[in-house]
Amino acid sequence: MQKKYLFAPGPVSIAPGTLLAMAQPIIHHRAPQFAAILREVEEGLKYLFQTKNDVLILASSGTGAMEGTVTNTLSKGDKALVVRGGKFGERWTEICEAYGVTAVNIDVKWGEAVNPALIRSALEADRSIKAVFIQAHETSTGVKHPIKEVGEIVKAYPDTILVVDAISALGVFDIPVDEWGLDIVVAGSQKAFCLPPGLAFASISPKAWQRVEKSNLPKYYFNFLKERKSLKKDQTAYTPAVSLIVGLREVLAGIKEEGLEKLFAHHRLLAEAARKAVTAMGLKLYTAVPSEAVTVIQAPEDVDGQKVVKLLREKYGITIAGGQGKAKGKIFRISHMGYTDRFELILVLSAVEIVLKELGYHLELGSGVKAAEEYLFQHRDVA
Amino acid sequence: MQKKYLFAPGPVSIAPGTLLAMAQPIIHHRAPQFAAILREVEEGLKYLFQTKNDVLILASSGTGAMEGTVTNTLSKGDKALVVRGGKFGERWTEICEAYGVTAVNIDVKWGEAVNPALIRSALEADRSIKAVFIQAHETSTGVKHPIKEVGEIVKAYPDTILVVDAISALGVFDIPVDEWGLDIVVAGSQKAFCLPPGLAFASISPKAWQRVEKSNLPKYYFNFLKERKSLKKDQTAYTPAVSLIVGLREVLAGIKEEGLEKLFAHHRLLAEAARKAVTAMGLKLYTAVPSEAVTVIQAPEDVDGQKVVKLLREKYGITIAGGQGKAKGKIFRISHMGYTDRFELILVLSAVEIVLKELGYHLELGSGVKAAEEYLFQHRDVA
Repeated sequence: MQKKYLFAPGPVSIAPGTLLAMAQPIIHHRAPQFAAILREVEEGLKYLFQTKNDVLILASSGTGAMEGTVTNTLSKGDKALVVRGGKFGERWTEICEAYGVTAVNIDVKWGEAVNPALIRSALEADRSIKAVFIQAHETSTGVKHPIKEVGEIVKAYPDTILVVDAISALGVFDIPVDEWGLDIVVAGSQKAFCLPPGLAFASISPKAWQRVEKSNLPKYYFNFLKERKSLKKDQTAYTPAVSLIVGLREVLAGIKEEGLEKLFAHHRLLAEAARKAVTAMGLKLYTAVPSEAVTVIQAPEDVDGQKVVKLLREKYGITIAGGQGKAKGKIFRISHMGYTDRFELILVLSAVEIVLKELGYHLELGSGVKAAEEYLFQHRDVA
Repeated sequence: MQKKYLFAPGPVSIAPGTLLAMAQPIIHHRAPQFAAILREVEEGLKYLFQTKNDVLILASSGTGAMEGTVTNTLSKGDKALVVRGGKFGERWTEICEAYGVTAVNIDVKWGEAVNPALIRSALEADRSIKAVFIQAHETSTGVKHPIKEVGEIVKAYPDTILVVDAISALGVFDIPVDEWGLDIVVAGSQKAFCLPPGLAFASISPKAWQRVEKSNLPKYYFNFLKERKSLKKDQTAYTPAVSLIVGLREVLAGIKEEGLEKLFAHHRLLAEAARKAVTAMGLKLYTAVPSEAVTVIQAPEDVDGQKVVKLLREKYGITIAGGQGKAKGKIFRISHMGYTDRFELILVLSAVEIVLKELGYHLELGSGVKAAEEYLFQHRDVA
């Protein structure tokens, strides 16, 4: 009978209206009814991505779209620059290596953002680099990389494209794809989209399409040219995840109605209130460049971050995320994405306080919540 | 996109498992499949009511069962004693009067519990009183009446039955129907049952059945003898609310699995934490004999209780209850019933703090939440 709460950076909690839409009887993906839905969805995606580019819709999780961007834009022996400052930066390198692409890694200390000057000098040093791979938000560390600045740098290289993993960023904070000149932007359904996992997206600029047309890496399921051709007929190349796309239509209609600025303000409100709480609890943020998607908290000395996660989940039914890779045990992460609100933030902060105290950390119960409440009171007119 | 929360004393929030059970394709109520469900439900109800008595299942809200107890146990011109200390006490009087039963009212000041000695003296003064009507918990004031003591008194009168409206009490706190000798106990699905409204229940003791057999008040839909006859065949007299009964089976199975003591401890935990918070906020409880179902809070001077309710609902999507009748504007009520938990209590307390401050009440934000958290921490091993 325990109530469950989900504050992980994906999957996230889903609005009842979306769940009900997805629970409708399934429809066939080659029928005109589905084509109309896909047309509507494509429009909605362009609004959310702030782009005129094609936005491909793939039946996979985000990693599928990441793999697709490598295999569809590069050729055997190509070199790619990878910003590697967390688990998802590492993933770009792994994918490149799996396909024989040479990854030139810019290793960034976990918890820090990349210095854009390093990207400029790497591109200057090696004109044969065909693509730059980066995260808009590195989910494993909570870091926001300076995508706008990176976009300005890469723009100057006509043979190099910028590929941004915005899986836990798009819809959370402002990423104007066309304005910033981002060639490929990858997103996934299980983050700010407030959908279950199973859909990935990739917006492709004209500059990126030129690369795609020349790419000779092996690929079959993730075939961007085939997808573009199908999209022109309001279809997908292979069987789409029909019910997720039906849910997506609901979500995108809601986003359009509320407007992007409101969506971003919502995440800012939660993230800023969470940060105030963290400081008031005597804890430290893991990064000085935090995103609005996830608040990453350093576990106090003598407290294993994984135990915070475990106690919250097992005893109280509350799921947050622990650390990954080298941050395992050292941090815990609270997501602000999904169908959640300011008072659920209070709920999870309160639970974190109690659990930290149960694990022996000395804090004044209510101190973090009080700070968050004060921030929320000051910003009570942010809808 | 606003998230909604329900902390009203009915309807209450419902567990996903129950919602899904009720969303299954409807079945026919005269089929063996339904009879089996009804048998299981009847067993579960007896466990919850702690009784060997028949428990009738009616397709109505609680008031229907209240009316049924009057029309099925009394006859024209009978006298009934009514404990009237709130809106639902008044309802007993109104039903009696609608059917020509003379209500002898014991008027209790709103916010106070009845003194059982008054019942004894009333029954002594007038031996022709056929029934005593009372609330186990008067939802409009949050008062718990001393049902055990009243049971002991009424037991001594062989021609008088005790009828307890336990609509917002059964499943919340301990009401051992047989042990306390309660002749009729009425309950409703939309409170601690964690179901939508639409089902009412009445347990009928052998002593009460004797009255039923003699009753001559007009009745048709609420016909207890007909219901008893149908129940022996695992049916109901008229078409039952099939999907609610399917949901009820889920709920009762869960209650059986957890055990009554755990259910009562859960409500005690929430109610006690809420009371600590109220005091810490500088506010007052409306009653000195509070129930575990609802915490009733006096609105601070210069704050209209109705405005607290309105601002919570309209601005923040959180539903609590205001005052009814003569308590309107003076109080607001937070329910602990339904599919909710300790951290949702924190959530609603935090929202109440912010809203009270928005309405001009001077309080230190977080003060109530802190007190509740401290109580929850001390009682962290209450599951």
